Amino acid sequence: MVETRRFLHQHPELSFQEVETARYIQNFYEKLGVPYKANIGGNGVVATIVGNGPGRTIALRADFDALPIQDEKNVPYASKVKGVMHACGHDGHTATLLYLAKAFYETRNNWTGKIVLIHQHAEEYAPGGAKSMIEAGCLDGVDEIYGTHLWALNETGSIGYRSGPVMAAADRFSITIQGKGGHGAAPHNSKDSIIIGSQIAIALQQIVSRRINPIDTAVVSIGSFEAKNAFNVIADKATLIGTVRTFKKDVQEKIKIEMERMIKGICDANDVTYLFEYDEGYPAVVNHESETALLVHCAKEIQEVQTVSEIEPSMGGEDFAYYLEKVPGTFFFTGAKSPDTETPYPHHHPKFDFDENAMLIAAKTLGAVTLQALNKQPATEEETVVR
Amino acid sequence: MVETRRFLHQHPELSFQEVETARYIQNFYEKLGVPYKANIGGNGVVATIVGNGPGRTIALRADFDALPIQDEKNVPYASKVKGVMHACGHDGHTATLLYLAKAFYETRNNWTGKIVLIHQHAEEYAPGGAKSMIEAGCLDGVDEIYGTHLWALNETGSIGYRSGPVMAAADRFSITIQGKGGHGAAPHNSKDSIIIGSQIAIALQQIVSRRINPIDTAVVSIGSFEAKNAFNVIADKATLIGTVRTFKKDVQEKIKIEMERMIKGICDANDVTYLFEYDEGYPAVVNHESETALLVHCAKEIQEVQTVSEIEPSMGGEDFAYYLEKVPGTFFFTGAKSPDTETPYPHHHPKFDFDENAMLIAAKTLGAVTLQALNKQPATEEETVVR
Amino acid sequence: MVETRRFLHQHPELSFQEVETARYIQNFYEKLGVPYKANIGGNGVVATIVGNGPGRTIALRADFDALPIQDEKNVPYASKVKGVMHACGHDGHTATLLYLAKAFYETRNNWTGKIVLIHQHAEEYAPGGAKSMIEAGCLDGVDEIYGTHLWALNETGSIGYRSGPVMAAADRFSITIQGKGGHGAAPHNSKDSIIIGSQIAIALQQIVSRRINPIDTAVVSIGSFEAKNAFNVIADKATLIGTVRTFKKDVQEKIKIEMERMIKGICDANDVTYLFEYDEGYPAVVNHESETALLVHCAKEIQEVQTVSEIEPSMGGEDFAYYLEKVPGTFFFTGAKSPDTETPYPHHHPKFDFDENAMLIAAKTLGAVTLQALNKQPATEEETVVR
Amino acid sequence: MVETRRFLHQHPELSFQEVETARYIQNFYEKLGVPYKANIGGNGVVATIVGNGPGRTIALRADFDALPIQDEKNVPYASKVKGVMHACGHDGHTATLLYLAKAFYETRNNWTGKIVLIHQHAEEYAPGGAKSMIEAGCLDGVDEIYGTHLWALNETGSIGYRSGPVMAAADRFSITIQGKGGHGAAPHNSKDSIIIGSQIAIALQQIVSRRINPIDTAVVSIGSFEAKNAFNVIADKATLIGTVRTFKKDVQEKIKIEMERMIKGICDANDVTYLFEYDEGYPAVVNHESETALLVHCAKEIQEVQTVSEIEPSMGGEDFAYYLEKVPGTFFFTGAKSPDTETPYPHHHPKFDFDENAMLIAAKTLGAVTLQALNKQPATEEETVVR
Repeated sequence: MVETRRFLHQHPELSFQEVETARYIQNFYEKLGVPYKANIGGNGVVATIVGNGPGRTIALRADFDALPIQDEKNVPYASKVKGVMHACGHDGHTATLLYLAKAFYETRNNWTGKIVLIHQHAEEYAPGGAKSMIEAGCLDGVDEIYGTHLWALNETGSIGYRSGPVMAAADRFSITIQGKGGHGAAPHNSKDSIIIGSQIAIALQQIVSRRINPIDTAVVSIGSFEAKNAFNVIADKATLIGTVRTFKKDVQEKIKIEMERMIKGICDANDVTYLFEYDEGYPAVVNHESETALLVHCAKEIQEVQTVSEIEPSMGGEDFAYYLEKVPGTFFFTGAKSPDTETPYPHHHPKFDFDENAMLIAAKTLGAVTLQALNKQPATEEETVVR
Repeated sequence: MVETRRFLHQHPELSFQEVETARYIQNFYEKLGVPYKANIGGNGVVATIVGNGPGRTIALRADFDALPIQDEKNVPYASKVKGVMHACGHDGHTATLLYLAKAFYETRNNWTGKIVLIHQHAEEYAPGGAKSMIEAGCLDGVDEIYGTHLWALNETGSIGYRSGPVMAAADRFSITIQGKGGHGAAPHNSKDSIIIGSQIAIALQQIVSRRINPIDTAVVSIGSFEAKNAFNVIADKATLIGTVRTFKKDVQEKIKIEMERMIKGICDANDVTYLFEYDEGYPAVVNHESETALLVHCAKEIQEVQTVSEIEPSMGGEDFAYYLEKVPGTFFFTGAKSPDTETPYPHHHPKFDFDENAMLIAAKTLGAVTLQALNKQPATEEETVVR
Repeated sequence: MVETRRFLHQHPELSFQEVETARYIQNFYEKLGVPYKANIGGNGVVATIVGNGPGRTIALRADFDALPIQDEKNVPYASKVKGVMHACGHDGHTATLLYLAKAFYETRNNWTGKIVLIHQHAEEYAPGGAKSMIEAGCLDGVDEIYGTHLWALNETGSIGYRSGPVMAAADRFSITIQGKGGHGAAPHNSKDSIIIGSQIAIALQQIVSRRINPIDTAVVSIGSFEAKNAFNVIADKATLIGTVRTFKKDVQEKIKIEMERMIKGICDANDVTYLFEYDEGYPAVVNHESETALLVHCAKEIQEVQTVSEIEPSMGGEDFAYYLEKVPGTFFFTGAKSPDTETPYPHHHPKFDFDENAMLIAAKTLGAVTLQALNKQPATEEETVVR
Repeated sequence: MVETRRFLHQHPELSFQEVETARYIQNFYEKLGVPYKANIGGNGVVATIVGNGPGRTIALRADFDALPIQDEKNVPYASKVKGVMHACGHDGHTATLLYLAKAFYETRNNWTGKIVLIHQHAEEYAPGGAKSMIEAGCLDGVDEIYGTHLWALNETGSIGYRSGPVMAAADRFSITIQGKGGHGAAPHNSKDSIIIGSQIAIALQQIVSRRINPIDTAVVSIGSFEAKNAFNVIADKATLIGTVRTFKKDVQEKIKIEMERMIKGICDANDVTYLFEYDEGYPAVVNHESETALLVHCAKEIQEVQTVSEIEPSMGGEDFAYYLEKVPGTFFFTGAKSPDTETPYPHHHPKFDFDENAMLIAAKTLGAVTLQALNKQPATEEETVVR
């Protein structure tokens, strides 16, 4: 597993360009004798292992794209591709899933149903690979799905779970204010885009502070304000670009509406026009309750797992969200910080690395929950506990 | 003159209630033998003195109302009326004009034309007396008009003049924001009038800083912000009341339009309704150039006048403005600060008083300019200097 | 139980003035033969029932004060006291606890340990009665505590629970800006408190939108903005009063610090002074995990309980918070909306009422969890699941 | 005169690089036989003509630098230098002064005293040439100075004058806010420079609207707001650059102080640091009263002058300001819009041109005022009219 991970680490490929990585995965299943389909919704690969008799179908997903970052680690297995690096652990996800698949295949007489292994391309770059793989049918017939992220900031031996929203919807917006340029000494003959842009930036703070239920989570951040000019002019145009993060669809919708209302009102107040563009990114990752409970139950049984904790939701995004919109499942975090590491480099850092022991823990946890899920009896009645 | 002034000072009457003061003036002219008309446009009194043969007609104006202020001066001639006081010097204006009229009458064989003495009620309180007196015909046939204000903050012996705008148009506005009340813990269920009112208060600063030609003068001040509630609610309603000051009609018009645009835009931005009321007060007092030049010329000839200076315009209001919209003329300031007074109390102060010697200076200056104006030849050609 | 509730409903008493209500409670225990202590931390009453042998000690709490609201209901048991009303259901809490106590007393041979019945005065009005009752020793020797609120907006038959924060800390702040008054026409000679207050109101929006972790919950609301003046002045002073709501102590602390920093910076920016007062109200009600789990378990066993649901936290406050700072326990919501009621009046409404059937459900649930808690074995090891 | 102007127009040189233009001027005086000094405070040239006997000394100034603009006119005398152009009329100023000097020289027996001809480099680019030429002594012994600007937007035949401030002080400021960058999804871990910059931009509107006497003129404009980043970050840094325009030194000083107070306060409010740089440009051009009156008097006598009008002050800058800080004088505008031109291109436009007939009018007006000023008797007493 470590060898595979290191080979992949040395040969990273950017999102939507992962041709050799996909071929590597195909070869692995080829040699193993497991049937697979390639080019699913792009570079995606889907393998299926059939057990000993009919039953449920459980899917597992691992992503395999890398990032446009120059590897700065001083290790023998550092990236051989200039400016491209597995700086998020997707190499580890892939190695984990491949060897877990091998174990499933070798023990296929001991279980019934089907296990679907989804090797997904392009998680790092919107619109991502999940959406197109689902459209290409990778979830057809699947009853449940599970996935994990190796997390270098949590101790190896920890499993982090959360029912409900666990990662945020991450959207992008841009606002262009078209004022009227002029001489800085004659403001009355122009329409000052910078002041209008500033008014909007300040007013948008009210979206979170006044418009959204305080119980809900929302972020509206302006990352970029661009109106570069000479000192003695009035700015013709100002462009504000930013991000919105939410966990609920209705909160996301309300923010979009309230933003536009605020921008329009303030532009009207200043007699200028504007362009407001809002691009939805991945939706929120919303874990299902009973699948999360099953994961917690299984994780506690794994010998190498020392802690199983509910974690706070993260404001980051993940296109695992799309799978969970279609079938029940859960996405959890497998700690991958070696006890020897004092302060680990965060994900997406040029010196990022993770504890390779965590791959075995991820594999065992995913393996356990898969086998339990295959055996699960369909629920006969609704739970009384409703979230 | 001093005696008359002190009598009036002891018997002040509020704007639009000056019945006894008007009667006093009428009696004065009655005894003198000068014809007058009473109840002009309200409590106004207009006397006319005819000179020795036909000629021009020059008007002089003095106002005679008092203020709702309790006199706190410790002098024998303090107000005898509780809560009412001549705290602006209108008693002095009246005494000055009465004795000047006496002098004109006694010397009526020495000059030709007519002198109209306008004793105006209600200068202190909009809509003022000037407008209705003009409507009642007090300016009919008048060629020019002059007026002065005794000014307790300038040294006795000084005359302050200015061609063009010298006192501002003083308007009043009110903005009521109708939001939606609610519990302070649930901002998302209400529309926060206080925050919207604050947004508007801040945004209105741009009227002066961005919308008006910097060469022009303008003030937009909010004097009152009212949204008093319990600490744990969201305010249903907020009311902002304030004043606008300008010297030019087009600036005033632009401010009104831009204010409404700003208020409307910000209320739309917050999805609330509003009521915007704008009441124009007295217009700006705009002195005429050649009449001001004549005043300067005459003032320099008066023995008691030590300085004749161009003054900065004042942002205060005066309904003398209405007369100058109809006929040429000028309104000037006669210093009335005794050399013995260190720091005089300002006009409208409960301890306000002025140097009574200034009345003679005012009378002489008004007298001189009136006689010069009566003799003036009609201009035969336009001046080349245009302001 | 209904009779007792109706009697109390007709004879409501305001917070800290509940002398007769306390006497009623004392008489009840007197007649029953249960020992009690009166005047605990004010008007509080604490009764204790000893079971059949030594064991654990479990406390239950009911509050008994009313509100300064005029009862507008048209029912025979409406309030007989003008302007005072049980508009929050504390009459129901008291009746419930008294008859539950009676049942415990009658069955005291069937259980071991002690049951402490805390009848608390003054929940509605800070600083509340809980704090002083605890200081007076009402929790001495208590192992766990439970309490409920009858909730007229939830269906009768529902129990709402939540582990962790369930009701917010509710604080009050006031900000007084001392500017410098003056004439509205001369802003440069004064310091405009209204504009500075507006700047602060707007800037405080950033506390929630920029300073606090989006995962955490926080509200900063300004309920009152007071600077009422004439239209043509500059406001000398402006006073803003509002509330802060939080669930975590560190969030509350951060808000206090960031508010003061913001207010101070903006006042410095405008060269004015300020007074900032921040009064902490009740802390957040934070339910304990295993006691909440026990409640859920017990509630599901009650025949009349149809649904047991996790509820969203409420931004309202409750001084039950103080008990949970001292001993483990949970505070839950007992639905009290009759199926016949279409749209119930909310708590604190002049026409508020609740379904009296809910009292029995509350009593049964509290009874069940108390008996289970008395029997609970001390935990021998830490749970692995950490929130 | 036209020939010289056209030659200079074809050979423009940028500010501080006007070597050949200076040589051209020197050659002109060389041939004429008038003594001159070169390299005065840079590329400046100063010629002096002595009259018939002792007397007063009057200076005239013409600037001779060009602008970094590509000439787009389609005329035979268009600029031969790529990207450099006399787009402001300084070529005309120079030709005017040279031929006026010739006339003074040829008539030197008819007048007494001295005439100093100041040919100034680098008016267009701060710190300008005036300051260093004065430091080099060009005003030594000078009693009065006069200068004019050919103005293509006013009709040929018009002279525009104004006593007191006529062109503004034009300053430059920059504000750099050093916040703390971070991820857009985690505002609480960073300090958002864009929001702080917006708060400052909005707050600076109060300088003009609240801090400065409404009678005075002031502009504070932000021309540039730069914080360009990715959409999903919090901006580390924001830079605002702008201009301040004033007519009075104390207003300029107050703005500087109030800006810094506002910036510091708001940065403190947000716990960030800042860098505020304020560079004073040319001071305001403040014309002297009696020299302006003399100009008006003389201009009215010139046959080709049809109108002599008081103009509104301009918010633009001019380093003629420095001369007027040292000696009395006036700077006026000579109309240079041909009656054939419908809508003239403004100064600094690539197609800018002016009516060459205006040069003769400028020369005659400057000539007349110079001869009158040479004959002026020293004032024996102060004017009573004080502005």
